[in-house]
Amino acid sequence: MSANIGPELQRLIDLLAKLPGLGPRSAKRAALHLLRKREPLMRPLAFALADAADRVKACGVCGNWDSIDPCAICADPARNRSVLCVVQDVGDLWALERAGAHRGLYHVLGGLLSPLDGVGPGDLRIGALAARAQSDAVKEIVIALPSTVDGQTTAHYVAEQVKRDALAVTRLSQGVPVGGELDYLDEGTLAAAMKARRPA
Amino acid sequence: MSANIGPELQRLIDLLAKLPGLGPRSAKRAALHLLRKREPLMRPLAFALADAADRVKACGVCGNWDSIDPCAICADPARNRSVLCVVQDVGDLWALERAGAHRGLYHVLGGLLSPLDGVGPGDLRIGALAARAQSDAVKEIVIALPSTVDGQTTAHYVAEQVKRDALAVTRLSQGVPVGGELDYLDEGTLAAAMKARRPA
Repeated sequence: MSANIGPELQRLIDLLAKLPGLGPRSAKRAALHLLRKREPLMRPLAFALADAADRVKACGVCGNWDSIDPCAICADPARNRSVLCVVQDVGDLWALERAGAHRGLYHVLGGLLSPLDGVGPGDLRIGALAARAQSDAVKEIVIALPSTVDGQTTAHYVAEQVKRDALAVTRLSQGVPVGGELDYLDEGTLAAAMKARRPA
Repeated sequence: MSANIGPELQRLIDLLAKLPGLGPRSAKRAALHLLRKREPLMRPLAFALADAADRVKACGVCGNWDSIDPCAICADPARNRSVLCVVQDVGDLWALERAGAHRGLYHVLGGLLSPLDGVGPGDLRIGALAARAQSDAVKEIVIALPSTVDGQTTAHYVAEQVKRDALAVTRLSQGVPVGGELDYLDEGTLAAAMKARRPA
């Protein structure tokens, strides 16, 4: 970057450039935009960052991020307490909430098993899940982990850890995405969709 | 957005979504990224935003943004004080600095004349430019404003305001961008490049 940008501005640009979706150029544009909107945007964003860094914690029950503990989902009396949905991280929890796809509770693992990266069961919230799954109130565990090698390995391991009589352990179905063209789908997905075909 | 994202997090996501280059989804990704990197990124960014909002001011001479006044460029004894380059905003100044295209001083107008948007000469730093241009030390004014209708209107007006004997008023050349294919250029640029053709 130019030597003629002051150190405070340069530090701001460098930090903004570390956000996913922003690069060095868009970080400069963002910095200029912020400086033009100091009171309506720049100071509130500074406060919101510090406030969220202080107050947003992982829910002690499910691992979701919220400023209250238990989180708003765990505390919601309208949620179905008999179904736990296991997700990799809070982003996936948000995606399921956005879809309105799950009215039960969640359990956020905080990652996937990955021997190559040195991530073992002790690094994830699997023990806490196994403890929750012991409760007779829990009737079903839906494993909603990604369809990747690490995701499926983790799903297998999780299923083993939670299994007991009278507890259903299920997974998200695999198949053709809604609105998806067959022509553009990879062979693995097409084969899985064919194998899991259902009566029309 | 989901009702199940806590208010602190939702406020953070809403503010991040107002940055140019980020939308609602990428703001959520950015918020998750920040929460995972609280000490190395989130708190430093909060501090850098507040610090820059407090300390970065428009240079009293040229209008560049810096934490010192006069700014680092105006204060640099190595810059050529006889040439002033007139730009629309600080982003354009940074672009010229990045290109190493100008070793003189700058003058940031802070916008363009735009009768439709109610922007008149009094809203821009044109009076300050005219005052600087009176100095005998200034030998040339380079007008580096965009090749848009408002940009060219403003360039005309600025040229009128600063003109005096022994002061050269110049503009950036128009033509084919370096590396540009003729086939993809608009007719206006091609016509301008032809009109301004030079000996090979």
